Amino acid sequence: MALDKPYVVGIDIGGTNTTFGIVDTRGTILAGGAIKTSKHVEFDEYIGQLYNEITRIVEQENLVGQIAGIGVGAPNANYYTGNIEYAPNLYWMKDGKRLEIIPFAETLREKFGIPVAITNDANAAAIGEMTYGAARGMKDFIMITLGTGVGSGIVINGQVVYGHDGFAGELGHVIMRRNNGRLCGCGRSGCLEAYASATGVARTAREYLETRKDDSLLRNLPLDEITSKDVYDAAIAGDQLAREVYEFTGNMLGEAFADFIAFSSPKAIILFGGLTKSGELLMRPIRESLERNILPIFRGKTSILLSELKEGDAAVLGASALGWEAK
Amino acid sequence: MALDKPYVVGIDIGGTNTTFGIVDTRGTILAGGAIKTSKHVEFDEYIGQLYNEITRIVEQENLVGQIAGIGVGAPNANYYTGNIEYAPNLYWMKDGKRLEIIPFAETLREKFGIPVAITNDANAAAIGEMTYGAARGMKDFIMITLGTGVGSGIVINGQVVYGHDGFAGELGHVIMRRNNGRLCGCGRSGCLEAYASATGVARTAREYLETRKDDSLLRNLPLDEITSKDVYDAAIAGDQLAREVYEFTGNMLGEAFADFIAFSSPKAIILFGGLTKSGELLMRPIRESLERNILPIFRGKTSILLSELKEGDAAVLGASALGWEAK
Repeated sequence: MALDKPYVVGIDIGGTNTTFGIVDTRGTILAGGAIKTSKHVEFDEYIGQLYNEITRIVEQENLVGQIAGIGVGAPNANYYTGNIEYAPNLYWMKDGKRLEIIPFAETLREKFGIPVAITNDANAAAIGEMTYGAARGMKDFIMITLGTGVGSGIVINGQVVYGHDGFAGELGHVIMRRNNGRLCGCGRSGCLEAYASATGVARTAREYLETRKDDSLLRNLPLDEITSKDVYDAAIAGDQLAREVYEFTGNMLGEAFADFIAFSSPKAIILFGGLTKSGELLMRPIRESLERNILPIFRGKTSILLSELKEGDAAVLGASALGWEAK
Repeated sequence: MALDKPYVVGIDIGGTNTTFGIVDTRGTILAGGAIKTSKHVEFDEYIGQLYNEITRIVEQENLVGQIAGIGVGAPNANYYTGNIEYAPNLYWMKDGKRLEIIPFAETLREKFGIPVAITNDANAAAIGEMTYGAARGMKDFIMITLGTGVGSGIVINGQVVYGHDGFAGELGHVIMRRNNGRLCGCGRSGCLEAYASATGVARTAREYLETRKDDSLLRNLPLDEITSKDVYDAAIAGDQLAREVYEFTGNMLGEAFADFIAFSSPKAIILFGGLTKSGELLMRPIRESLERNILPIFRGKTSILLSELKEGDAAVLGASALGWEAK
């Protein structure tokens, strides 16, 4: 396929950093960079700096006029409107007021004069996986990001599911424990995210340490400071309690995946994010739990896969993949 | 729109009866009929009778050559393959063996010489609602059928969700009670269907009668013979226990719907089936529970609607709607 404009730009906006890169059709990042998201309080200054930095690398690479589109991944981004809506961690001012609904796609489109599309991080990850990663050739799959929280991007019939309002795919907030569930950041209780995220793993470990009496390497650490990384290290060192934290987490993910499969019967569920570094510690209990919990007609049909995108590049790659379909 | 062939045929296959009708673009059934599904054990004889009956009414209505397609709704029907696969209540023989995988669409296509498409009853209901009923103009909605069991048809981006294998949309089998859940017909425990179906309502009533001591009109009936209709009659007569059965059922449906909305963010959830005749007895607790359980970003955005198709016609209408897209 000879493309007239064979490159896209991906931009990933986080509360701390905004990273970006120029990407080709095969998912190679030719050049990239980053700016501090919160350096400028004025939205126009932030956009100005982002524009200058991206323009600089595009010129450096001699790619002026060869960028097909820009894709943006950002929290609370709405694909339909192109806006970032009420994102708690993004603070910009315009005309003396906080911008709560940020017309991000439109602003960039006017600035660069090329097509821009925007979606949330997990949807961007799903598109990235479909374009360059483990979901190439798949029309039906679910991307689950297991990081600080639990995010999801759902693909059905080859299209990301946005729902009627642009906000579909909040699988971190299905309720897994209806009685006495853990309080979640969303204000409700018992959400998947409160258990199966990196913070959830640390919470489970602290719960076990408080309610059980058995020895554990984790008892050498101050209870309130235990992280999912500590739990991982202890589990790798053979610590039984830490291993049971992974059993519990994987078991719940398997239960949740069985319900997701009853909904959209995906070819694969693809996992991405910090928690997946625990490998078989988490994957084995997920697979075993899924096998126990799945509706018989779906048994053995859905693969549980790990992302094939390099973690450091995935956010920019995912966002960039959206650039190919930007209009 | 002037159509070359402005009519379709809808066929609904149940364990007892197979009903069919000729339908126009507005959802009017011009003529219809029914045959006994199990009268003929030989599959070819069943198909022969079905062909004769349908041909007869098409000729009677002077519509030979004007049928655009045939749509079929059947249990365990696979849209992709056109087969009915391992349906427990359909028993036909061919070449001296039980047909477990029935090439239904292909057989009808050869017999009639016109396009045929097939899907399960709940998907057919969703397509019917989108074509002729409460979901006209909607691109994202979920159809929930509350009958003997709980079925579902999911529409996203204007397309029925079939999943990679053709069996997506088993929302009656998401797990609502993970501890001590009721045994479900699927062999697992705690499924939505075990609670929110007509049989589930009767089970809840029996549970209440066994575990509680308060008076109830339902205590005048033999415990094992109580049906959802009895519970309805008692509730209408002001019986407190019967009303609480509806509170419990509606509450669980609201919990389930909150999770479904987190998945695909539909514009509406449309309810169909015998249980919906209970009207506000069920609808009010559903709406209240949904409001309590929904993730804040989705609050107030999804309508809970009742089907607009007449119950007696809905199965044939739903199946017929699939005929428009048959190839």
